[in-house]
Amino acid sequence: MSSEMFTVNNLWIMLAGCMVFMMHLGFASLESGLTRAKNTVNILFKNTMIICIGILSYCVIGFSLMYPDAWGLDGILGWAGIGLDPGADGQTSAYDDGFTYYTDFFFQAMFAATAATIVSGAVAERIKLLPFLVYITLIVSISYPITGSWVWGGGWLDEMGFIDFAGSTLVHSVGGWAALAAVIVLGPRLGKYAKDGTVNPIPGHSLPLACIGVFLLWFGWFGFNGGSVLTADADEVSLVLTTTALSAAAGGIAAALVAFFVTKSADLTMALNGILGGLVAITASADLQSPLTAIAIGLIGGGIVVFSVLAFDRIRIDDPVGAISVHGIVGIWGTLAPGIFGAEAGVGQLGTQAVGILAIGAFTLVFAFIAAFAVKALMGFRVDASEEIEGLDLGEHEMSAYPDFQRVYIKSYHAREI
Amino acid sequence: MSSEMFTVNNLWIMLAGCMVFMMHLGFASLESGLTRAKNTVNILFKNTMIICIGILSYCVIGFSLMYPDAWGLDGILGWAGIGLDPGADGQTSAYDDGFTYYTDFFFQAMFAATAATIVSGAVAERIKLLPFLVYITLIVSISYPITGSWVWGGGWLDEMGFIDFAGSTLVHSVGGWAALAAVIVLGPRLGKYAKDGTVNPIPGHSLPLACIGVFLLWFGWFGFNGGSVLTADADEVSLVLTTTALSAAAGGIAAALVAFFVTKSADLTMALNGILGGLVAITASADLQSPLTAIAIGLIGGGIVVFSVLAFDRIRIDDPVGAISVHGIVGIWGTLAPGIFGAEAGVGQLGTQAVGILAIGAFTLVFAFIAAFAVKALMGFRVDASEEIEGLDLGEHEMSAYPDFQRVYIKSYHAREI
Amino acid sequence: MSSEMFTVNNLWIMLAGCMVFMMHLGFASLESGLTRAKNTVNILFKNTMIICIGILSYCVIGFSLMYPDAWGLDGILGWAGIGLDPGADGQTSAYDDGFTYYTDFFFQAMFAATAATIVSGAVAERIKLLPFLVYITLIVSISYPITGSWVWGGGWLDEMGFIDFAGSTLVHSVGGWAALAAVIVLGPRLGKYAKDGTVNPIPGHSLPLACIGVFLLWFGWFGFNGGSVLTADADEVSLVLTTTALSAAAGGIAAALVAFFVTKSADLTMALNGILGGLVAITASADLQSPLTAIAIGLIGGGIVVFSVLAFDRIRIDDPVGAISVHGIVGIWGTLAPGIFGAEAGVGQLGTQAVGILAIGAFTLVFAFIAAFAVKALMGFRVDASEEIEGLDLGEHEMSAYPDFQRVYIKSYHAREI
Repeated sequence: MSSEMFTVNNLWIMLAGCMVFMMHLGFASLESGLTRAKNTVNILFKNTMIICIGILSYCVIGFSLMYPDAWGLDGILGWAGIGLDPGADGQTSAYDDGFTYYTDFFFQAMFAATAATIVSGAVAERIKLLPFLVYITLIVSISYPITGSWVWGGGWLDEMGFIDFAGSTLVHSVGGWAALAAVIVLGPRLGKYAKDGTVNPIPGHSLPLACIGVFLLWFGWFGFNGGSVLTADADEVSLVLTTTALSAAAGGIAAALVAFFVTKSADLTMALNGILGGLVAITASADLQSPLTAIAIGLIGGGIVVFSVLAFDRIRIDDPVGAISVHGIVGIWGTLAPGIFGAEAGVGQLGTQAVGILAIGAFTLVFAFIAAFAVKALMGFRVDASEEIEGLDLGEHEMSAYPDFQRVYIKSYHAREI
Repeated sequence: MSSEMFTVNNLWIMLAGCMVFMMHLGFASLESGLTRAKNTVNILFKNTMIICIGILSYCVIGFSLMYPDAWGLDGILGWAGIGLDPGADGQTSAYDDGFTYYTDFFFQAMFAATAATIVSGAVAERIKLLPFLVYITLIVSISYPITGSWVWGGGWLDEMGFIDFAGSTLVHSVGGWAALAAVIVLGPRLGKYAKDGTVNPIPGHSLPLACIGVFLLWFGWFGFNGGSVLTADADEVSLVLTTTALSAAAGGIAAALVAFFVTKSADLTMALNGILGGLVAITASADLQSPLTAIAIGLIGGGIVVFSVLAFDRIRIDDPVGAISVHGIVGIWGTLAPGIFGAEAGVGQLGTQAVGILAIGAFTLVFAFIAAFAVKALMGFRVDASEEIEGLDLGEHEMSAYPDFQRVYIKSYHAREI
Repeated sequence: MSSEMFTVNNLWIMLAGCMVFMMHLGFASLESGLTRAKNTVNILFKNTMIICIGILSYCVIGFSLMYPDAWGLDGILGWAGIGLDPGADGQTSAYDDGFTYYTDFFFQAMFAATAATIVSGAVAERIKLLPFLVYITLIVSISYPITGSWVWGGGWLDEMGFIDFAGSTLVHSVGGWAALAAVIVLGPRLGKYAKDGTVNPIPGHSLPLACIGVFLLWFGWFGFNGGSVLTADADEVSLVLTTTALSAAAGGIAAALVAFFVTKSADLTMALNGILGGLVAITASADLQSPLTAIAIGLIGGGIVVFSVLAFDRIRIDDPVGAISVHGIVGIWGTLAPGIFGAEAGVGQLGTQAVGILAIGAFTLVFAFIAAFAVKALMGFRVDASEEIEGLDLGEHEMSAYPDFQRVYIKSYHAREI
């Protein structure tokens, strides 16, 4: 490998890491846009802390758990020492053709916090701040890197031939499962599900924020998927960007159409979540699909979002932003897709994909439930009803997100809520 | 060409495509910021659909129409087959020194949707949703790629020596003309022009959103112009970024100054549109100008914006965001500029530029009027007056963009409007 | 140097320049978010003009003052001619291994406007528009490039061995000092400090805007620090991105924790400013630190922010966004840090760092006070009390930032203010 090629490969992975960083702003914007103004400071604070905690904890133990030097339990649990250690070769192509040790860490650390950030939206508007931060620290520093090591760290699922290119399961479903466990332990928001079975919509307070969030996530996803090629190879990366763009576009249109036929209105929130569904769906096999199969995967991913969001409401799983549907359920679909479409499709592969989905889902759910119950027992998990009604911004932060406008808002809001 | 150089060239074009993608968030932010809160969901929905439709339709037929394998009508109308087909060489430098087939598609697809998105702002606050989507699909999938093929596809205008580096005419004026036709067919917003000749200002609801939009557009434009070099050549790309930055800065200052002398106030909206004017103006010849001529082109472009916006209001062409001025009129100026300033300036070149402007303007206007009247006849084009007064968000989407704040707003607004 | 390596180096510096450009949107968002809605158009207008003026004035004289061909006063004041002149070698690697002349200008021009933009937040809500623009033009086109030439232009501080990798002092402290001088000349906002010694909090009007601003600044900082390597060297740039990310994360957590212990609430504004503190702190030596020392530098930087913000309020220096603390005070800490931590640490180095801090601080403060008093004498500096109460948006711009919402706001606001 020439030093020029190493430099250009490494440059791409660094830039891809910067683009994935933008996804954190995307999540912060999307989640605050899709929830109420009285809880906005809380969402923003959580997302600000998640990226900080995510980077630091991944530096201290996550990177080491995910890319072990040596396995304690073969292919299941390994370790590479506390903190970062590039060793003698870490800053040269002897470490990897595509990147230095620090580039590897930088890119992977940006990924790691993503899984945690998915949880944040699902549990919004009712979770206590400190227990939440402890919960996601456990997920991002222990659970996520362990299941990650099974595939990207060269563990047992990788040996088995499980395909998950950029993490439909490893990142998105893991985030979805962690969100599901927390939501079940928390229960729904006050007023969301009436006794007579009615589902009360609780609309988000700023659709421009939500829209900014989704576009930034889409932008960042070009780095998320494109960087997962792990080199700047022109052939592979350009295919990945193309399949990613097509699947996202197809997901947006599918969700808008399905929502229109189901609800008879042009539903912006569904269209936006459909784009994310298209993105999550293509993530496991963006490098294996053609434009045509990418569109098919995105269309199905976008359609699933609508039905899944409605289904979770029917079983009274309250997820304010639809994160469990978008990342969890569509993450399953995306992980199955390379068994059905594309270069590696086949019944055997489909079976392997199912094994991976089940194994990682089971581990993450068990870990997440234990973590959630432990945190709940030790610190409590949910704010009390009066704080929930007043809003977490005043209760947890003694601030309003929009103090020049919100006095009016808070008054009128209370009138509606109580 | 070494594989290293091919890889770095291709990397730059892919990244430039990602940056152009950000322009779609820029347009969504700018257009929603410059219109009223009661129509915000509608604008965001349109812009979300445009990027999805743009990418997909460009995949199915647009890319093929714009870069034909074979001409049906020589230099005027060609075709390269439905869908994407990289062929045997598409993923190597045998396709092009600068990029793979898929990189080419990715970059061009991001461009294509831009022309459509320009329309969206001009027709805001009164157009029906579905007819709008049909209209812009026709523009982006048929009209834009046909005129595009005349220059970038190697058609008759390219043979003639017409200069349009990154698309002052091919992208921006085309968008401006398509907007103009639609606006004429639609008519002005209710209450904009009083019977006594007064022009009522209808201020946009969020200047921070508008400002975010313009900065993102400026950022994306570095990819739009810089990527149009079609390689990462250090010499050319760095000149293009410099002329682009200088022209934008000059446009912003010129528009602010001119607006100050005309209206006696420091007009943020004009300054922002002046920056865009500087960007549109330099787009046709960013590679041919010096820093000094780039500043001159930007100053004139920014000044034109102010006079053009005022002139369109005088003839009762209602363009809520100034898109026809910024993209259409300044697009003409930008396309004439390389006949006046820079390496290729001369009377002969100026004549060639005028031919291209007229030919593409005429084709686009004719196509756009036919499309607009056809859509109007089949589906209607404008919402009814009560929906326009109430806002398209409730009428077309049954949602508010800011439900926590807008009850107050809607009440006070009605009082003002009716 | 191969042409491939030159192309990839140059590509990175161009991209880094684009990323630094995004910091201007970051500052515009942060500063408008942290101030009141009635002054939002004013902040946005100022930040829009700053980037335009910054780029143009740096083109005309700044670049020449900062990177002199010849010294008039040896190592202190030099000149390279008016305007841009790449000369014969400017577009090749003969100019520099890492970039062309125009890339150099593009990257440095984006930097230059940063120092000016720091001032904008500190003087918000009370400064007159035109005098402000004159003031920052003087700073960005004369003061900033002269002190810049002392280090990056090869002047006396560079010869002395002063370390300031990407500008903790050269950019951030300079901005902080220029802000401090202007704030002292201006005085505090009406109502901020009561006669009995009470400090009245004046909360910013939109925390989502502030949060968007900080994330964009963080993103842009990867270009600010990473590009300051001045090549795409895989080893160095990846280390810089890693130390930058770790210090920012540590700064956010430290500020959140310290603020929690001091004020007993989870303070989003402090956490956001803590991230910026971590970024400013690592900027002087991002290339010299290890992950561990980067975390230490960020933790201290974030902690300093909280104490500094509280201390300035105690001495009645009214800085609405905390810019003097974040950029000025933490800039000092960041510049001292390479004397304490990392590859070059030592008592001698610490002394050299102190000399640079004092020399640049003294020059900037003297220049800034003279500029501020001169501008004040000639044009006035502060709006009158009635305009300040009504808001600068109406007074200076005859516009509201949120006209659909603000009528209510303005009424209720007046009631509170007067």
